[in-house]
Amino acid sequence: MAEVLHFPTEDAAKLESYLPPRTLPAPSKATQDNSSRPFVTLTFATSLDSSLALAPGVRTALSGPKSKAMTHYLRSRHDAILVGVGTAVADDPGLNCRISSDDAEGTVAPTAGTASTPTITSHQPRPIIIDPHDRWSLTYDSRVLATQRCGLGLAPYVVTAVSEPDPAKRQLLEAHGGKYLVISTGGGATGNQDTTRFRWEDILASVARQGLRSIMIEGGGSIINTLLAPVNTNLVDSVIITIAPTWLGRGGVVVSPDRVHDDNNQATAAARLKDVKWKQLGDDVILCGRLNSLVC
Amino acid sequence: MAEVLHFPTEDAAKLESYLPPRTLPAPSKATQDNSSRPFVTLTFATSLDSSLALAPGVRTALSGPKSKAMTHYLRSRHDAILVGVGTAVADDPGLNCRISSDDAEGTVAPTAGTASTPTITSHQPRPIIIDPHDRWSLTYDSRVLATQRCGLGLAPYVVTAVSEPDPAKRQLLEAHGGKYLVISTGGGATGNQDTTRFRWEDILASVARQGLRSIMIEGGGSIINTLLAPVNTNLVDSVIITIAPTWLGRGGVVVSPDRVHDDNNQATAAARLKDVKWKQLGDDVILCGRLNSLVC
Repeated sequence: MAEVLHFPTEDAAKLESYLPPRTLPAPSKATQDNSSRPFVTLTFATSLDSSLALAPGVRTALSGPKSKAMTHYLRSRHDAILVGVGTAVADDPGLNCRISSDDAEGTVAPTAGTASTPTITSHQPRPIIIDPHDRWSLTYDSRVLATQRCGLGLAPYVVTAVSEPDPAKRQLLEAHGGKYLVISTGGGATGNQDTTRFRWEDILASVARQGLRSIMIEGGGSIINTLLAPVNTNLVDSVIITIAPTWLGRGGVVVSPDRVHDDNNQATAAARLKDVKWKQLGDDVILCGRLNSLVC
Repeated sequence: MAEVLHFPTEDAAKLESYLPPRTLPAPSKATQDNSSRPFVTLTFATSLDSSLALAPGVRTALSGPKSKAMTHYLRSRHDAILVGVGTAVADDPGLNCRISSDDAEGTVAPTAGTASTPTITSHQPRPIIIDPHDRWSLTYDSRVLATQRCGLGLAPYVVTAVSEPDPAKRQLLEAHGGKYLVISTGGGATGNQDTTRFRWEDILASVARQGLRSIMIEGGGSIINTLLAPVNTNLVDSVIITIAPTWLGRGGVVVSPDRVHDDNNQATAAARLKDVKWKQLGDDVILCGRLNSLVC
């Protein structure tokens, strides 16, 4: 039986101003509209030396139980959660929300005497997998599909640039309520020269067209680093980071955006947070903020 | 005129359990005694991506004014402060303490009506420069000596492996009340194979022989990274880190110890803090903890 997680109401209240409003209007579903995007929260957990993991594909326990419960609370507050294909392949993640229904809805727990067995929230976020080359080895036994069959999560939407994705995987996805979202890499009005990568505007517009009003972007390293680049910081509404008091050491999967230079070609800070709040949670700290565009 | 910094008594109280006791006995001064060492506090400020600076030798403003005042308060609570020669060459630092005498002594500020002009504390830490090859280009105009001449700091002790250091520099140092401490690299009872580096036990014993009971180790990167190696964590009593909500980007001077492997040759966390306390100070966070030896 899946563990039901709890996140205290008083801790949740401290995050509220960084979360999508509870009454977000649905984005435009017009198929050609590329200007609409969901509320975007960038969230991840690192070591003190800014590593997500000891190495690519190595599951690394970093944050404590309270921080883990917070992550699931955040999932309950978003319509979608996004990871790159590298994370999907390496971790075989469930990508669901295991917070209790009381915590998810912000309702007060039942008083003593009327206490009932806690249940997992019925609000589940839609997993979004970024997989330009359709390389994810999705099978019937993949944890995200098994979780859906148990009624504890949703099947993923896979964003790919392959115009005719693998038919068996398409069938498997669709049988579970998931699907492929085919968009193109490169190009676009703002002139993306990198034809191997999606533009974030295109990904987010594609998500919005599915009626998803908010998205929590969780990783991995290259997903996070591209969103911290100056060209993309205006697409991120909130940043919520967990930092564990551990150094993983050299060679990990590091969060650190590409170097940025100012108008005089001097190296400068790549990104800075404003409206900053730090809050200890167990042995970890939670950092909330908004991205301040330093270079345009 | 030098700026006098203030650090509120209530913030100082939260650091107290991580600082050297106010009544530390003097260490043994026996010249052959290598077992005595001062109380060691490791302290530094990084970005979210664990960088001390944008590049070696580039002064990088990271932490805010409150964190800066904390650093000077910490200096008032130690007999010595240590940096590597790289930092001395790059930053030409003053290496003094500019906290007010009231804050340094933990006395209550004078009440209104009797307020006097704040003065810089008269307790100044001894700067210790680690310079194995005597390459520091110390001159009469170096800031640390100018600061000493103003009565606002002490001249440094330079730890070197060069048995006959430059005579002009020796004279300059000694005229200001500083000196060379000559010790050897490599060797030692525990068998240091790296003959180009000092053993930390030897450095700390040399400091203790000067009657210095506590030392704050501030940087730079290689100094910090070697102290975070499992072989040295038992030499560190406290760790106090400032983290600023900024990403400097790839290519900075990074705090991240060498990779550590467990008994099964699997990569594992290099270092972990225990007795952890996080405290927001301005936009930064202060992390206090003690090093937990993970691998022996």
